[in-house]
Amino acid sequence: MVNLSNYLHINAQLAASQHTIYFGEDLLADTQLVRSQVAANRVCVITNTTIKDYYLSRLEQSLADINLDVISLPDGERFKNSDTLSSIYDHLIKYKHGRDTTIFALGGGVVGDIAGYAAATYQRGVNLVHLPTSLLAQVDSSIGGKTAINHPLAKNMIGSFYFPSAVLIDTTTLRTLPERELRAGFAEVIKYALLVGGDFLENLPRLFALNFAKDDLSIATAMIAKSCGIKLDIVKQDEQEKAGIRQLLNLGHTFAHGIESVTHYNRYLHGEAVGIGLYLAARLSYQLNYISAQQVDFVESLLKQAGLPWQLPEDIDPGALKIAMLRDKKVRRGRLPFVIIRSFGNCALENGVTEEQLDMILGSVTA
Amino acid sequence: MVNLSNYLHINAQLAASQHTIYFGEDLLADTQLVRSQVAANRVCVITNTTIKDYYLSRLEQSLADINLDVISLPDGERFKNSDTLSSIYDHLIKYKHGRDTTIFALGGGVVGDIAGYAAATYQRGVNLVHLPTSLLAQVDSSIGGKTAINHPLAKNMIGSFYFPSAVLIDTTTLRTLPERELRAGFAEVIKYALLVGGDFLENLPRLFALNFAKDDLSIATAMIAKSCGIKLDIVKQDEQEKAGIRQLLNLGHTFAHGIESVTHYNRYLHGEAVGIGLYLAARLSYQLNYISAQQVDFVESLLKQAGLPWQLPEDIDPGALKIAMLRDKKVRRGRLPFVIIRSFGNCALENGVTEEQLDMILGSVTA
Repeated sequence: MVNLSNYLHINAQLAASQHTIYFGEDLLADTQLVRSQVAANRVCVITNTTIKDYYLSRLEQSLADINLDVISLPDGERFKNSDTLSSIYDHLIKYKHGRDTTIFALGGGVVGDIAGYAAATYQRGVNLVHLPTSLLAQVDSSIGGKTAINHPLAKNMIGSFYFPSAVLIDTTTLRTLPERELRAGFAEVIKYALLVGGDFLENLPRLFALNFAKDDLSIATAMIAKSCGIKLDIVKQDEQEKAGIRQLLNLGHTFAHGIESVTHYNRYLHGEAVGIGLYLAARLSYQLNYISAQQVDFVESLLKQAGLPWQLPEDIDPGALKIAMLRDKKVRRGRLPFVIIRSFGNCALENGVTEEQLDMILGSVTA
Repeated sequence: MVNLSNYLHINAQLAASQHTIYFGEDLLADTQLVRSQVAANRVCVITNTTIKDYYLSRLEQSLADINLDVISLPDGERFKNSDTLSSIYDHLIKYKHGRDTTIFALGGGVVGDIAGYAAATYQRGVNLVHLPTSLLAQVDSSIGGKTAINHPLAKNMIGSFYFPSAVLIDTTTLRTLPERELRAGFAEVIKYALLVGGDFLENLPRLFALNFAKDDLSIATAMIAKSCGIKLDIVKQDEQEKAGIRQLLNLGHTFAHGIESVTHYNRYLHGEAVGIGLYLAARLSYQLNYISAQQVDFVESLLKQAGLPWQLPEDIDPGALKIAMLRDKKVRRGRLPFVIIRSFGNCALENGVTEEQLDMILGSVTA
C-alpha cells in the first residue's frame, strides 16, 4: 500500500472514475509509489524522444523488476495524429499486450493526449497512468479525462473521455522544462485563478517569480495541486462536458483555438495562445460591461509578469480568425459560446455574443 | 413525448447510461418515435449499400423535416477497419457535424460496431441511436455498449464502451434478412437460453420453427426482448468487463473467435462459429464433469434445429486453432478463461482448464 500521507494528493471522486493525483518532488524515483500503479506486470511506457533521455531511466529504476516496453514518439504536436496512433496499436499488438496491461504516459500534453487515447481504445480500454512532465500537462491535460488526436482539419477532433487510474505529478521535472514551455503552462494557472479569484489570484506573482531551476519547488507544487483541485471541482459537475459547466474551463480558449488554427499551430505554444485568449476574454467581458478597464489592465499585467504574449499580433487577420473560431467544436447551432469574466472568481458562459461584438474586440486589440 | 406503452421496451439503467430499448414491428416508420431521438436537427445516418436500399427511405420519411446526411459503407466485416473509420470522420467534418449531432446506425453488427465507435470518438462522443436490422445485432451487438473496429492482426482490437441514447429494434427488418444470417443470430439466442435455462430454453424450438417472411412476428419480438433483457442484466453487473461477470456472455465465444481466426473470417458467419463454439463449450463442460452426455446431446439438437453448424470440421487443425485462441483479448497471464455450463441456467468462468484438456476437446470433436 502507498502511504498517501507522504505526498500532497487529491482523491478524484468522479462518476466514471475514482483515482488519486499525487504531487511532489522525485515521485518518479519512488519505487513503492510507481510500482503500485502496475496492475499485472505488463507495462508499456509511451514517451517521446526528448523526455526519454531525461526521465525514462528513473522510471526504469522504479520498475526494475518489470520488462518494460517503451514507445518513443517523435516530439511535437504534429505527430499527435492517426498515423502515430496506428504505430502505437501495432506495437501493443506485436508485443502481445493484453487487457491487463498498464500504459504509462510519460511526457507533456501531446504524449498524454495520444497515449491516453490509445489506452482508452486499445482492446476497449486498458489501465492508464499519467506521468506529466510539463507544467501544462501537470495543471491541465493530465487532469479531467480528455484524450484526443488531431485530424488534418481540426485539433483534438477524435478522442474520448477516459480517466487514468492515477496521476503522478513529479514537479522535479519542471527543473528541466524549457523556459518558454514553463511560461506557457502559467497561462492555464492564470485561467484557474481568474475562475476562482481570491488569494490564489493575488498570490500568482510569487509563482511567476520563482526560479524553477534552483528554488525550492514547494510553492510551485502547492499551486499546481490547487490548480488541479479547481479543475477537478468543475469537471466533477460535468464530466462529459454536456451540462455547460465544464465549458468554464474554456475561458480564453475559444480565442486561443482560433489563433492556433490561423497560425497553423506552429507559431504559438498552446499556453501562449491561451495568454492572448485570456486577454481577449477580459476585453470581451469589459465590452459587455462586466469588468472594469482597471481589471482588464490587471489581467494584462499578470500575463506580462508570467512572460506570456497578450496582444493579438497585427499580422493576424481578424476576419480569418473569426472564421477559424466558428469551426470550434463548441459551436452549437451556429453560435459560439464564450466564457466571460463577470468578476474575478465568477465566470460564466455567454451565448449572446454577436458577430459585431466579436468583430469589435478582434479589430480593436491588434498590436 | 413518446408513449412508451405503445411498445415492448426495456429501460436500461446502467451506471454509464440510461436509455430505452424499443421492440416492435415497423418502428422505423413511427415518425414520432424516430423523430424524438434527434437531439439538435443534425443527423448522420451510417448504413451500408445493402441495407440502404431496403430501409433508408423509411427512415427518411420519419425524419422528413431534417436534411439527412447519409454515409453508405461497403457491406462486409472486412470493411470494419481504420480506413472506413477515417472516411466516416472525414465526412462528419466535411459536413460540419458538431457535438450536438446524432448518428443513426442503420444496419447489422458491422455497421453498429463501426458507427458506434465513430460516435464514441468523434469530438469525444456524439449522440448515437442504434437501428439494428439483423437478428445478431438486435439480440447482441446493439446491446451493451461495445463498439469496435478490427485491426489487421485481430478482430475488435480497437474500440470503446459507448452506450447509445436509444435502440430501436424494428423486427420487421427480419422479414428481408437472408436465411443464413437469421440462423446465425439464433446462436446468440441459444447462448442466452443456456445462461438462464428454464422456460426460455424449453421454448426455443418455437422460435426456430417460425417462418420469418410470413408468420406473425410477435413470438420473435418477445424472444428478442427476452434476449436483450438477459444480456442487460449481465452487463449491468459489469459494464466495463472488469469483474469477470460480463465474460459469461462469452459462452462459446473463445472457441468461436479462434475458429473465425483460423478460417480467416470468410468461411463462417460469427453466429455460425458461435454455434460450433457452444457445442465445444458443452463438450468441455461434460469433460469437466459438470453436465451429462444427454445434456451435450440436447445442445447439439438445439443447434441442429436452429440450422446451425455444431461440429468442428476435419480440415481445421486443432493445434492452429489452439494457437489462435491463445491470442484472444481475454487471455490473462497466459491463461484462457472458459465459460463452462455447470448446469442449464448456471454458467461460470473456469480458469483452470489445462492445455491438455483443451487438446482433448479439440482433437476429439472434429467431424
